[in-house]
Amino acid sequence: MRVYLDHNATTPLRPEARDAMIAAMDVAGNPSSVHAEGRAAKSLLEKARTEIASAFGADGADVIFTSSATESAALALRGRELHAGDVEHDAVGAWVTPDLAVGRDGEIVITDPAASCVQLANSETGVVQKLPEGIAVSDMTQAFGKLPVAFNWSGAQMALISAHKLGGPKGIGALVVKRGTDISAQLRGGGQEMGRRAGTENIIGAAGFAAAATAAARDLADGVWDRVAQLRDMLEARLAEGAGNTIFVGQGAKRLPNTSCIATPGWKGETQVMQMDLAGYAVSAGSACSSGKVRASKVLTAMGFDETTAASAIRVSLGPVTTEQDVMGFADKWLSIHGKHLARSA
Amino acid sequence: MRVYLDHNATTPLRPEARDAMIAAMDVAGNPSSVHAEGRAAKSLLEKARTEIASAFGADGADVIFTSSATESAALALRGRELHAGDVEHDAVGAWVTPDLAVGRDGEIVITDPAASCVQLANSETGVVQKLPEGIAVSDMTQAFGKLPVAFNWSGAQMALISAHKLGGPKGIGALVVKRGTDISAQLRGGGQEMGRRAGTENIIGAAGFAAAATAAARDLADGVWDRVAQLRDMLEARLAEGAGNTIFVGQGAKRLPNTSCIATPGWKGETQVMQMDLAGYAVSAGSACSSGKVRASKVLTAMGFDETTAASAIRVSLGPVTTEQDVMGFADKWLSIHGKHLARSA
Repeated sequence: MRVYLDHNATTPLRPEARDAMIAAMDVAGNPSSVHAEGRAAKSLLEKARTEIASAFGADGADVIFTSSATESAALALRGRELHAGDVEHDAVGAWVTPDLAVGRDGEIVITDPAASCVQLANSETGVVQKLPEGIAVSDMTQAFGKLPVAFNWSGAQMALISAHKLGGPKGIGALVVKRGTDISAQLRGGGQEMGRRAGTENIIGAAGFAAAATAAARDLADGVWDRVAQLRDMLEARLAEGAGNTIFVGQGAKRLPNTSCIATPGWKGETQVMQMDLAGYAVSAGSACSSGKVRASKVLTAMGFDETTAASAIRVSLGPVTTEQDVMGFADKWLSIHGKHLARSA
Repeated sequence: MRVYLDHNATTPLRPEARDAMIAAMDVAGNPSSVHAEGRAAKSLLEKARTEIASAFGADGADVIFTSSATESAALALRGRELHAGDVEHDAVGAWVTPDLAVGRDGEIVITDPAASCVQLANSETGVVQKLPEGIAVSDMTQAFGKLPVAFNWSGAQMALISAHKLGGPKGIGALVVKRGTDISAQLRGGGQEMGRRAGTENIIGAAGFAAAATAAARDLADGVWDRVAQLRDMLEARLAEGAGNTIFVGQGAKRLPNTSCIATPGWKGETQVMQMDLAGYAVSAGSACSSGKVRASKVLTAMGFDETTAASAIRVSLGPVTTEQDVMGFADKWLSIHGKHLARSA
């Protein structure tokens, strides 16, 4: 019996998304075609767009479908040289100047909002930023679906979001922009997405994204994440009790309800991930996209942690269906392995 | 009862693709994660890649997944200024210099293969090009699945392909390159696709693409398209018999087995599409991506047709499941409407 505690890497598909995708498989047309089959596909796509805008508090804003938040980042950021802290996801980091200061609790010091790209929540630590009015671009990928976010009230000109972080399929994301914002298309040649992103649209993915976003908004309203936050806090209390040298990164800051970043200086994060995997628990060290590379978390070093501490961090990220048994089982197993590690090191 | 004769715009999902996608919905992990769930996702992705390579005659080449042939075009062509004929799809046209001559039957005159981008088959006319050895990039989107194409024997350094033209889902394509070809990533920040295309992979889409490509290869081997070519020829014979002034564009050239581009000078293609749509038949004028814009087909003007003729063209594109009844029903209806058009114009 496996326990999946890596929801910040990706999430299982929600049943609502699954059903919507299967229904969309019967829509045969190309949304750009003018005949009945094309119009039916277009209608499904626009319905999905409206639902996502509604779940994201972005009514009246433009939702531009992309293949991922990574593509959204390239579309929003390429050629702009915005400023950022060195705690952004690599997909953002590839296009920005990482010269904004970052505090020990992960807070980014923003000096010029209109020239800055600032994440709403960090994928590794869960630390949530206060966004000032007028921020140019914000990566809201991890926050959307876990926090009550409304794009229209966020103060951001543009936001990156992704379906597979909230129970939708992998391979579809969006760039949300205030209506009328000028965007230079990176994919060209067709008039799709109001000329901002050419290419035949991922209809099945869009239907899944919309259904997942709607279900995620419902979960939020139902207080599902309050329960998750309690489980996360129980987990941290149990580990702190059993392993006194453990650091919960960003614990002093406002964090996502589901994320715990656990550093145990001297015990490599990668080793922990592999041992917990063998024991039946899926967690991660660093973001999924950079895992495989054995190195210290750049996020933690930016927050001022030394290399040894940064290399010892693991991320446990809970989902809406995570149970107390999942979390306490993880804690017991981790403490047991931790005890053996201490015995070996002694 | 609708009859769909617009398979070059997009195709209905094949049952095999549908089944593979539904099965892939149970794979929860991120292919970049190192734990068991991540490895299962990675394994599914790599199986899909291998199957597509096999169906495309590209064993040993690199298959880089993208979100569409449009994205593949941007990845292959951006910043390279290759030469092309003015008959390429707009997704290619956006990145090339359209200075190669095009003959009346659609053949492109290639002077420097290594500096040229040449489609294998045209989406509007079905005209098939002879690719010389060493062509830099070829758009094989329309040919893959309808013609016996083997990338490894095509003489092309890179090829663009797409799932939704052969019974797979919309929103996934690939750029296929000879192993070791240097590519500059357009989407950056993650190590996916060997560093050539960042972003969490569209696992469900990849599974559907692979199943569709495998089924398409089987159909080809079973001679399904020979039957389709006979239907297409029957259609053209019937229309020629009933409407003497009709031109079948590219009929003298080698064409895709399923495509008929029918020009009736003086009778607008857009009008025909709308009238046939009301009568229950889905066909198109120009490529789907540029439809909606009322203008003459750039492909036909590049072939030397005048504006009036170019604006009068419709495309009828058959699929593997198209029947004689579908095609003959279309012919009767079209001839009836054509007769009324002549009566009005007289």
